[in-house]
Amino acid sequence: MIIAKTIDHTREAVNAAKRKGKSIGFVPTMGALHDGHLSLVRRAKRDTDFVVASIFVNPAQFGPGEDLKKYPRPFGKDKTLLIKEGVDLLFFPGAGEIYAADFSTYVEERCLSKPLCGASRPGHFNGVCTVVAKLFNIIRPNTAYFGAKDYQQLQVIKRMARDLNFSVKIEAMPIVREPDGLAMSSRNAYLNREERRNALCLDIALREAKRAVDAGVRESGQVISLMKTIVLSHKNAKIDYIEIMDADSLTSVEKMNGKVLIALAVVVGKTRLIDNLVIKIPTR
Amino acid sequence: MIIAKTIDHTREAVNAAKRKGKSIGFVPTMGALHDGHLSLVRRAKRDTDFVVASIFVNPAQFGPGEDLKKYPRPFGKDKTLLIKEGVDLLFFPGAGEIYAADFSTYVEERCLSKPLCGASRPGHFNGVCTVVAKLFNIIRPNTAYFGAKDYQQLQVIKRMARDLNFSVKIEAMPIVREPDGLAMSSRNAYLNREERRNALCLDIALREAKRAVDAGVRESGQVISLMKTIVLSHKNAKIDYIEIMDADSLTSVEKMNGKVLIALAVVVGKTRLIDNLVIKIPTR
Repeated sequence: MIIAKTIDHTREAVNAAKRKGKSIGFVPTMGALHDGHLSLVRRAKRDTDFVVASIFVNPAQFGPGEDLKKYPRPFGKDKTLLIKEGVDLLFFPGAGEIYAADFSTYVEERCLSKPLCGASRPGHFNGVCTVVAKLFNIIRPNTAYFGAKDYQQLQVIKRMARDLNFSVKIEAMPIVREPDGLAMSSRNAYLNREERRNALCLDIALREAKRAVDAGVRESGQVISLMKTIVLSHKNAKIDYIEIMDADSLTSVEKMNGKVLIALAVVVGKTRLIDNLVIKIPTR
Repeated sequence: MIIAKTIDHTREAVNAAKRKGKSIGFVPTMGALHDGHLSLVRRAKRDTDFVVASIFVNPAQFGPGEDLKKYPRPFGKDKTLLIKEGVDLLFFPGAGEIYAADFSTYVEERCLSKPLCGASRPGHFNGVCTVVAKLFNIIRPNTAYFGAKDYQQLQVIKRMARDLNFSVKIEAMPIVREPDGLAMSSRNAYLNREERRNALCLDIALREAKRAVDAGVRESGQVISLMKTIVLSHKNAKIDYIEIMDADSLTSVEKMNGKVLIALAVVVGKTRLIDNLVIKIPTR
């Protein structure tokens, strides 16, 4: 596996692969890799000829009070995992390689980025869009892979890629969960044993929501109430948001219909966790 | 000359040229072409193998009270000029091809775009950066050509291309002037005979500024005063701004030193005109 710390090195290696007619798959990450990330890498390995992963803890997508400094950075372990998966190139830049001291250009998605995590974390999706646009321009992949746990991020990036005419296919992969149901996240590492137990409330709430929908409930308010009750019955769990939205437009729906997103963000102890479920409501 | 109205058609033709090993030169315009534009096309013809021009009156860079509707659109004449110059492809999209109904992603340069025209025309440079980023992604040129009359635009686009890692060289070409000194602009067509005469005040003010600097004046305030007096001695000329700035950082300088930009915007009748001069101040 090539490890490239500079943009120039990355471009040279990717262009060499392109000249050989290889298709380029790209998996952008912030490192602290788990099976969710690895599912993206495996799909990229299956579908494309030259797989690039990036590890960059992107300062621009963290807010002032957030966990930029303490975000886990187990580089040695990540590298071993990526080598094992057969990744061809790891782009591992320092912050100065990505953001010049006088950096001043941002990519803003102004619609899909507004609700949900965008409301709780102002500026977050600007940071995401900006770094992803940069990475797309550096790597010029044929296909880029994103996980469905960050459903809103996925929709925002799809929109950004469409709006700015990036020639890249955005491929989504399903949420990967721990055996007990907790959605995999690098931030799960922050949880102590008790918090880890209480963190199950997100998955439990989503499964109960699914059960209610399967039983015929269509009122979003009713489902949200149920989910709130479940989350708040867990110790040290504070609700950031629980929302039911049209899965494409990310606008709230009162009555569930078509493809809906049920999404929640919960702070367990000091750790903010997100999870979601997309349901196709059957027409009667 | 290929005339492509769709993104797909443009991409196909450009990619075919690339496959033949041709370098791509790109001249983005809003049409109503004059010798300033043609100087860009000629330079592109000289330096690259396959020259793409675009004509798109970009709604996103016009403010609410501005001249989007009346902006001149002499397509037949423009087409003839571009054919004569040997342009290989003209990209001439409709607004719907560039902006989907639910378009929501913008590129924002937040530093160099703030003073000068950015202060007078809020949102203007967001519109410029957004459409240029899109055009760069559609055409993927090796080199793109911009005129120095829009000096701030040039700096903003250079910064945008650097910050977002576009693989494109930005080439600037000098201001082209009418025989009497008026900087060429598509908006000169708005001027009636009397306004056309008074529009000379921009060039005269710049030449007098140059003379003062050559004579040893270094106080920006003194030069600006001189320029104001000249402009206001012309009928129906209203000053939007007259500024002296560091030519790289676009921050005002009190004492001229190094490379400075002398820039002004003047409304003559109802037509807003801009002009500028970059001077390298000699070290004593």
